[in-house]
Amino acid sequence: MSEQPREPVAPPSQTAAATARERLDALAKPLGALGQIEDIAAWLCAVQGQCPPRPVDRVRAVIFAGDHGVTDAGVSAYPAEVTAVMVRAFLAHVAGVSILARQHDVAVRVLDIAVDDNLVGVPAEVTRYKVRRSSGAVHLEDALTEEEVATALGYGALIAAEEIAAGADLLIGGDMGIGNTTPAACLIAASLGLTADEVTGRGTGIDDAGLARKREIIDQALARVGERATDPVERLQALGSADMAVAVGFLIAAARAGVPVLLDGVISVAEAIIADAIAPGAAAWFGAGHRSPEPAQALALEKFGLTPILDLGLRLGEGSGAVAAVPIVRSAALVLRDMALLSDLVPSD
Amino acid sequence: MSEQPREPVAPPSQTAAATARERLDALAKPLGALGQIEDIAAWLCAVQGQCPPRPVDRVRAVIFAGDHGVTDAGVSAYPAEVTAVMVRAFLAHVAGVSILARQHDVAVRVLDIAVDDNLVGVPAEVTRYKVRRSSGAVHLEDALTEEEVATALGYGALIAAEEIAAGADLLIGGDMGIGNTTPAACLIAASLGLTADEVTGRGTGIDDAGLARKREIIDQALARVGERATDPVERLQALGSADMAVAVGFLIAAARAGVPVLLDGVISVAEAIIADAIAPGAAAWFGAGHRSPEPAQALALEKFGLTPILDLGLRLGEGSGAVAAVPIVRSAALVLRDMALLSDLVPSD
Repeated sequence: MSEQPREPVAPPSQTAAATARERLDALAKPLGALGQIEDIAAWLCAVQGQCPPRPVDRVRAVIFAGDHGVTDAGVSAYPAEVTAVMVRAFLAHVAGVSILARQHDVAVRVLDIAVDDNLVGVPAEVTRYKVRRSSGAVHLEDALTEEEVATALGYGALIAAEEIAAGADLLIGGDMGIGNTTPAACLIAASLGLTADEVTGRGTGIDDAGLARKREIIDQALARVGERATDPVERLQALGSADMAVAVGFLIAAARAGVPVLLDGVISVAEAIIADAIAPGAAAWFGAGHRSPEPAQALALEKFGLTPILDLGLRLGEGSGAVAAVPIVRSAALVLRDMALLSDLVPSD
Repeated sequence: MSEQPREPVAPPSQTAAATARERLDALAKPLGALGQIEDIAAWLCAVQGQCPPRPVDRVRAVIFAGDHGVTDAGVSAYPAEVTAVMVRAFLAHVAGVSILARQHDVAVRVLDIAVDDNLVGVPAEVTRYKVRRSSGAVHLEDALTEEEVATALGYGALIAAEEIAAGADLLIGGDMGIGNTTPAACLIAASLGLTADEVTGRGTGIDDAGLARKREIIDQALARVGERATDPVERLQALGSADMAVAVGFLIAAARAGVPVLLDGVISVAEAIIADAIAPGAAAWFGAGHRSPEPAQALALEKFGLTPILDLGLRLGEGSGAVAAVPIVRSAALVLRDMALLSDLVPSD
């Protein structure tokens, strides 16, 4: 495989973050009264390298769609056919994230990376980065070949470059793929040294029997891969999927380009963990849009030290939790730019 | 005093809420995948009496400003003079809530209800509903006379009527007043049978000595008033303030008119508790914008069974937590209106 560059990512500006903290303390409000909005404002200054920050006007979301071999093992409440149906719903702008994105003026692009369907009739640009149909069932076989991982990471970098060229103050990666919380949980477990028990959640809403089956599949996948999971690229190849590999490439390229990303749910956070392992320091360019009910997501955010913005029990995927959090990110930039300083209101003598 | 009508408030439509739940389950998403946004959507249908709901386009916030006699006892990190300074900041559109309200297209009106300043030069409509300069120090004396409470409740009803006439899909009541978390904590403690220990928080950010002093003041106020606090109007008169009494009148009138209100922090929730005690059932018309770090706020929301939308550690007051939550309320209406039904995407044969 073509070697993925593994150099560390340059950190955001700590100088700009420190200037932001000083300015936040000087605003016409009690110290710290804007709570987490102050942390987001300081992060925005750090990633933009300036204080006050620019407004976060141009937000672009990419939905990486793909199917997963594990779905045949009954790990989801829905059949794999739903993935292709939802790709068409994104194109018709009637999915959940479509509504939120229109509300918040976020550009949404959906890409078929590994949908198990030929998607006849969809525009050619939607399938341009298709890696394969579905990904391997991770409890039985590797998700991808070595060559497919390399291709997928490269595609992700190209997609990020396209989005950045279109003008992006903030990027979001979304997911669509029945069965995808299973490989995501595998990636998080293998990355953080957790057990299947600790990372298995109900995804789209499986019952107790489904949950037990899913836990077993994750356990089996982790046992199958064993020590090979030590290397992050091999971990992605063995336990991930094509759509997640493309998203990993997207995240790394965004961080290297100095463009911040707002993470979504468990899929997005699993991708971020792999991205940060391949390109150390990438995570400093990521914020957390929301807390998902999936246990693996909270564990992974903790490891990054990221506090999610929203905690509404959302488990829709599609990037929806991150898109719903965009107004708060924008608020953080605006208050730091536009609120009065206390010294403007009460001139000292 | 002129008797405040104490009849129960008519409940929101449970039929519309049930229709909303059916439609939510039929949307193109896993059951319950929009989490708390689904609860908000059902509440919107209930208060509007229709499903799908109208968009929540027209949101209006009123900031009730007033000073508090307890400030002289050292319960705040800031001097009382700041209240008047902030009224001018709202009028100049440079306060925290001003920035958030501009972002979210929320109309903001500030009213001097009991600022301890003549506010020379501010427009006459800002002081039109002034009840008095400051309110009584509740550990030593009643906040208001019987006549002032009646006047304040009446003013609140007039203000709500004005806002509703201007067109309001949702109302917000905000507060500005150095020292105001002390009477608010007193009202919540007396309403829920809690102790000073349980309700006392750091407000704008007092130190440990200030916190101990504040706890003592609250304890003293509760002891001074004793059994008189059983009646909600008398509770408001003895332990509240003019600005809070006007806001109580505003909340009751909004609920009676069938216009929903998004509550803010501890002041707003204290007012809601009194409103619901005077006009039983009013709380069904209230949603919770955010969780404040003030312990009394969380306790009061629990008693109402209200789950706050945001939990960002905001403690700015001004209605800011509710205004910051407006996009989520709007999202709830939009997804229920505009998302595809699963049956639209996968026609059954």
